[in-house]
Amino acid sequence: MHILIIGAAGMIGRKLTENLARRGTLRDQQISRLTLADIVQPDAPETTFPVATIALDLTTPASAKRLIATRPDVIFQLAAVVSGEAEADFDKGYAVNLDGTRHLLEAIRQEGLREPYLPRLVFTSSIAVFGEPLPAAIPDDQLHTPLTSYGTQKAICELLLADYSRRGLVDGIGIRLPTIVVRPGKPNKAASGFFSSIIREPLVGFEAILPVDESVRHWFASPRAAVGFLLHAAELDTAPLGQRRNLSMPGLSATVGEEIAALERIAGSKARALIRHQHDPAIANMVAGWPQNFDTRRAIELGFRAEQSFDEIIEAHIEDELGGRIA
Amino acid sequence: MHILIIGAAGMIGRKLTENLARRGTLRDQQISRLTLADIVQPDAPETTFPVATIALDLTTPASAKRLIATRPDVIFQLAAVVSGEAEADFDKGYAVNLDGTRHLLEAIRQEGLREPYLPRLVFTSSIAVFGEPLPAAIPDDQLHTPLTSYGTQKAICELLLADYSRRGLVDGIGIRLPTIVVRPGKPNKAASGFFSSIIREPLVGFEAILPVDESVRHWFASPRAAVGFLLHAAELDTAPLGQRRNLSMPGLSATVGEEIAALERIAGSKARALIRHQHDPAIANMVAGWPQNFDTRRAIELGFRAEQSFDEIIEAHIEDELGGRIA
Repeated sequence: MHILIIGAAGMIGRKLTENLARRGTLRDQQISRLTLADIVQPDAPETTFPVATIALDLTTPASAKRLIATRPDVIFQLAAVVSGEAEADFDKGYAVNLDGTRHLLEAIRQEGLREPYLPRLVFTSSIAVFGEPLPAAIPDDQLHTPLTSYGTQKAICELLLADYSRRGLVDGIGIRLPTIVVRPGKPNKAASGFFSSIIREPLVGFEAILPVDESVRHWFASPRAAVGFLLHAAELDTAPLGQRRNLSMPGLSATVGEEIAALERIAGSKARALIRHQHDPAIANMVAGWPQNFDTRRAIELGFRAEQSFDEIIEAHIEDELGGRIA
Repeated sequence: MHILIIGAAGMIGRKLTENLARRGTLRDQQISRLTLADIVQPDAPETTFPVATIALDLTTPASAKRLIATRPDVIFQLAAVVSGEAEADFDKGYAVNLDGTRHLLEAIRQEGLREPYLPRLVFTSSIAVFGEPLPAAIPDDQLHTPLTSYGTQKAICELLLADYSRRGLVDGIGIRLPTIVVRPGKPNKAASGFFSSIIREPLVGFEAILPVDESVRHWFASPRAAVGFLLHAAELDTAPLGQRRNLSMPGLSATVGEEIAALERIAGSKARALIRHQHDPAIANMVAGWPQNFDTRRAIELGFRAEQSFDEIIEAHIEDELGGRIA
């Protein structure tokens, strides 16, 4: 079982890598080889199996060809430019988020023309494929009307993944992740960063800024749940998916107020007091157009699972990032 | 008013060209220049204004750049490989139907970066963006689940058109044409060809083969209606479209039996007798997954109009193609 992770240096990529290193198996098979690729050299974990780390420009056909020439059995395609950056840099967003995945699909097809090859490809899509007008709970058959270039690029890759899979050129599955909280480490350029920082920073005694009202509702899952989605997507039988190869992952619909109440239950009023309200109209406007809740019955029927409360999400962060202890 | 038609040598392109030559105006402005481009040299009509005809490979960035360097005010992008060919030739389908339109959008953006430029781009999409499961009448917010590479390519171009328009890089509108009947001339490679031939051939005394049951229902408009859609899409105010730049055109939902009954009303039982039933399971299977009816209220509210009966469709064919007379 040879596994390739593209975008392995990112937050989810690192957590997926650690998980695979710990378990040592996928689909009831020993992992014989793990290849970690990203635009920067990913860190190699300690493993009982060989790990290769590769830094390469994912936007060129040659990079995709080089990665696929090693014929991995399971490929995780996590590499992406985040929404804010894809909006600010038109060319980079399309090059990474559209062409990067298209080159990968095409390299898989070309390898299969040379000698039969049908790897499982797990692609991380996004709820940014959805845009206004949105129902209170977004169903599995909601039309894709992205309001950002990032969402457009993800929606296009979903279509490509489905067509390549329909034609038997790849065994693809696209999963639309909820907003991942609590993101560890430093903020990235995503406008959604505050959903994490208002938990992460107070838990270690730092102040965090809340740029929106507490009534704002959004859709969440933990990094731990995200890794669970990826592993399940790599292992499940794709036959029941039929031609519908992309699906919204389960998550938790919660308001910022509910998020803060969970923080207070777990870390007390001193943690809550570290959240400073500082309204940012630009961020508030963006967030107002975002999905608030989903009806993800297809994913749930297929066995995908997320947290049921924000308390669980915060506790997962404390266990996974803070060694189980808070100040 | 400089107009560019890409795909001008095709059936709809020729009819649009003839119409523009006759009317001499668009958007209440005199047409000062008409550029006709296709993979083969299009015919130039007799006009009171200059016409340039260009044969070029639409799948290269250089071709798109060359066409856009002349800064047309209105661009009709009709060029496409039909569904059967896009399914049979993977590379050609993606090169023409996806990359051709993407290069065009990108050439427009680059021209706009050089000097402000915001042309109206009318793109012909297709009802092939929809696939099973389908409701009895497909609404404007139906999810795109194409079951062919052709439908995938059209759905992707719709997303690109919407994103480039949202960012103010083009003033785009995508229109999903019904199946166009009665197509004049020789059959093309489309599996839908029989819908036309069972009318066209008997009207001139020839036999035609019907490969499906008379109960098959589908969605139709005439070539004349299609030209009307294109002209209206070029002239309408796009502001009411908001971020939803693509829409299904109105049409007529009819069964093959209703189609044949209209033929008999207009051309008698001798015409009907020229239709030979010869079941083709491959075609019947394909057609079974196609849309049967639409609820196109957005397009109707925006002023798009199609035929109300199959008699009208046949009469338009007799007027436009047979000089108003049948044998």
